Amino acid sequence: MFIEKEIGSNLREEFIDITHTVRDAVVESGIMNGIITIFVPHTTAGITINENADPDVRTDIIHGLSSFGFDSMDFRHVEGNSSAHIKSTLTGSSVTVILKDGELVLGTWQGIYFCEYDGPRRRKIQIKISGS
Amino acid sequence: MFIEKEIGSNLREEFIDITHTVRDAVVESGIMNGIITIFVPHTTAGITINENADPDVRTDIIHGLSSFGFDSMDFRHVEGNSSAHIKSTLTGSSVTVILKDGELVLGTWQGIYFCEYDGPRRRKIQIKISGS
Amino acid sequence: MFIEKEIGSNLREEFIDITHTVRDAVVESGIMNGIITIFVPHTTAGITINENADPDVRTDIIHGLSSFGFDSMDFRHVEGNSSAHIKSTLTGSSVTVILKDGELVLGTWQGIYFCEYDGPRRRKIQIKISGS
Repeated sequence: MFIEKEIGSNLREEFIDITHTVRDAVVESGIMNGIITIFVPHTTAGITINENADPDVRTDIIHGLSSFGFDSMDFRHVEGNSSAHIKSTLTGSSVTVILKDGELVLGTWQGIYFCEYDGPRRRKIQIKISGS
Repeated sequence: MFIEKEIGSNLREEFIDITHTVRDAVVESGIMNGIITIFVPHTTAGITINENADPDVRTDIIHGLSSFGFDSMDFRHVEGNSSAHIKSTLTGSSVTVILKDGELVLGTWQGIYFCEYDGPRRRKIQIKISGS
Repeated sequence: MFIEKEIGSNLREEFIDITHTVRDAVVESGIMNGIITIFVPHTTAGITINENADPDVRTDIIHGLSSFGFDSMDFRHVEGNSSAHIKSTLTGSSVTVILKDGELVLGTWQGIYFCEYDGPRRRKIQIKISGS
């Protein structure tokens, strides 16, 4: 089962909670056990799993990545968003989550986040649920 | 087949070889061909595949990540472990390994490592073997 | 369906486009829908998905990772390539791509890149296509 969802970012850099979007896709699929691939079809964004309780953690991760100083480095790519491309590669373009008895197998403090590094923009996520 | 295993870390930062744990799960499953998802349900830990011969390589990776200076940066999250959360996102929460004829398809020098960034603690890993 | 391909790198650090290699493997498999795992069995290389249009982006990513300064740090591993091992962990050892109606589900600007961090060398990539 393949499901595509649209999301919108509001800031240049922002981690957007998409855990509920993935849960909705699982319900829509009717699949109970397997694995879920959540894929980001963009090269200036990423996806990660991290803390879902204190929103300061997402702010701190964005701050930590900014400390690399990519925004003030000289790059060749003329669009001026090489910083976002590098962060995309460091974060990754997909996450895999295990599906068991109809539930995402996530730790208590884990949520799934779309990582916007070059917003605000309209974005897509693609969800593939494999199993039965 | 879904299998959960417990592991314990002994240091604040430590890469723990879990290759044998994954191999045991494969034998337990009886599955011969497919893919294996190894997932870490924690937000201050990660998982990676790297050199299995010289243990200095793991020490060097921990040292390399520490050179980012997250430990001495000012963060908002009051628990004081934002450094571990950022390293978790940089490393990733799962790895995928191909299973062929009952064997993990790993390079000669590759092992699978649980990355502890905020230990010592009791931890879990979740293993999903998809295939037949 | 499991397919192994050989590639060669020509530089010490280089991102090599393997999108067409993965497409060829999909055609060879005859599988139309599922997921594709592309795995790198090396510990001084990685794999990523990023911009396929302007080759300057790949140069910029390599430059961004070099700015971490691993090449001039003191490490314990005597082979002198700890920098490549760390970049391997930061980039990751596999990517997952969704396969739909016989086509890779990639964004318009996305290509799949083998990340050489310790070349030039002969290298392998392993492709597993799961589905039907």
